Amino acid sequence: MAVARRLVVMGLGLIGGSVAAGARASGAFEAVLGWDQDPEAVRRGHALGYLDAPAWDGVVDARDLVLVAVPTLAAPAVIGQLWDAQQGVLARGAVVTDAASVKGSVIQALQQHCGGTLPPGFVPGHPIAGSERSGVDAARADLFQAHRVILTPTATTDVAAIERVTSLWQAVGARVDRMDAARHDALLAMTSHLPHLLAFTLVDTLGRQPDPEAILALAAGGFRDFTRIASSDPLMWSDIFSANRVAVEAVLDAFEERLAAVRDMLGRDDRQGLQQLFADARALRESHLTGGNP
Amino acid sequence: MAVARRLVVMGLGLIGGSVAAGARASGAFEAVLGWDQDPEAVRRGHALGYLDAPAWDGVVDARDLVLVAVPTLAAPAVIGQLWDAQQGVLARGAVVTDAASVKGSVIQALQQHCGGTLPPGFVPGHPIAGSERSGVDAARADLFQAHRVILTPTATTDVAAIERVTSLWQAVGARVDRMDAARHDALLAMTSHLPHLLAFTLVDTLGRQPDPEAILALAAGGFRDFTRIASSDPLMWSDIFSANRVAVEAVLDAFEERLAAVRDMLGRDDRQGLQQLFADARALRESHLTGGNP
Repeated sequence: MAVARRLVVMGLGLIGGSVAAGARASGAFEAVLGWDQDPEAVRRGHALGYLDAPAWDGVVDARDLVLVAVPTLAAPAVIGQLWDAQQGVLARGAVVTDAASVKGSVIQALQQHCGGTLPPGFVPGHPIAGSERSGVDAARADLFQAHRVILTPTATTDVAAIERVTSLWQAVGARVDRMDAARHDALLAMTSHLPHLLAFTLVDTLGRQPDPEAILALAAGGFRDFTRIASSDPLMWSDIFSANRVAVEAVLDAFEERLAAVRDMLGRDDRQGLQQLFADARALRESHLTGGNP
Repeated sequence: MAVARRLVVMGLGLIGGSVAAGARASGAFEAVLGWDQDPEAVRRGHALGYLDAPAWDGVVDARDLVLVAVPTLAAPAVIGQLWDAQQGVLARGAVVTDAASVKGSVIQALQQHCGGTLPPGFVPGHPIAGSERSGVDAARADLFQAHRVILTPTATTDVAAIERVTSLWQAVGARVDRMDAARHDALLAMTSHLPHLLAFTLVDTLGRQPDPEAILALAAGGFRDFTRIASSDPLMWSDIFSANRVAVEAVLDAFEERLAAVRDMLGRDDRQGLQQLFADARALRESHLTGGNP
């Protein structure tokens, strides 16, 4: 079944490139086209076989689907410009979705741009997948296989548009859920944004010690895994923290409160208390993170 | 070349079992024997082919090498008992080493046990390798391949004993370095103990939120890697924190100072500052953690 006539991917980084690659391989679209502020990314996506043409003609028609996969803070402007330029077409049924990691800020900025109401054909979305690598050369057609995509439609979002976006993500192998944007942002602050902040901060701390090279020379597999996310794209992540600041500060409060409690146990040499806390953490992690989405 | 006549491994967990497996496969010993407070672990080690016999007769002679691989806080007592029981033999040339993750506390406790001076045939050591898995069934003959082992001899440690312990670790594929025990403990607090504390604390924080299952359902690969070390053995880790409390508190101070700085940038929406900090962290990590020891 064709999900839409054409898929236009705006922003050909890791996410956009991977969607294009997976969508083209799925055969669910007559054509997969791409746009990027760097035309070289589009040529590269075409050369890699992820796009049907080396350029997009800028045209959207009512049967098309547009995915905006640019950094979080850039998304509202790109979607807003698309809306302004193609208002007639978008109003007649073309569907636009995005892949920004924070949903509340994108929705608010776009509501403001459009005079209060989100265009009904815009479906806010976020694929829970990624890698510390970035750029179209890191793209993989199977990046979303068995991963979740969260859609956060508002009360005014068109139901048929939600279904078309759901079909896009299913075509690239993902499982699609829906939830409120505020809940999405709070959950992701905990599972993704806070871990990234801690990993970046740990490497930063280490870099300010005397002789960081000697310290890193002793780093084993645990340290490598723990800090892998500190090799993530700096612009993408400063955007995410800016866009989700309030929710990140809230989980940081919760974390610092627990860190103070752990530190207190450490100071009192409360081995039993620490052992119990570690055992509970291990049990929680093992009971919910084995199997399931990778 | 035979490193020693027999290798006796006391404590057949992941580390002890892996040394036994690798040592037996290396052919560097006439026999590899094991002891554990749980006799089943010894039978299991023998059944898995890591030991030459289903039990150790308790005998040490001057040509033997004993590795004590029990949890950090238990190590001084096990080594002390061995010293008391075999004092004559140990004084005549048998070598004892350990694998505890903290060195200062083991050395101090044993100095106290032995009336002030460490037995010259005792070589404090720590293999920088491991896994979130534990127990002899998780052992692997190649666990130490291309990993580092740090020896922290004191001024009174016998040079020939250091050489025999070095040969043991080289026989199982490790690279051996030497440093001061205090420096070892400070470096490991940064590369290993602090990351474990943060990972345990993050999972603990998450477990105290409403509906932790819903949060974990959204965890992707980054979260899994970041928290993998929170599946480590709770007893082993409460021991390590107790034994290295002062050094861990010092690195926790440094980390909390940087976390406060990051939080301040977040509060001021200093995107440029965060982006620079993330870029520096990524650059430091990538320049020193690619290649080298896994």
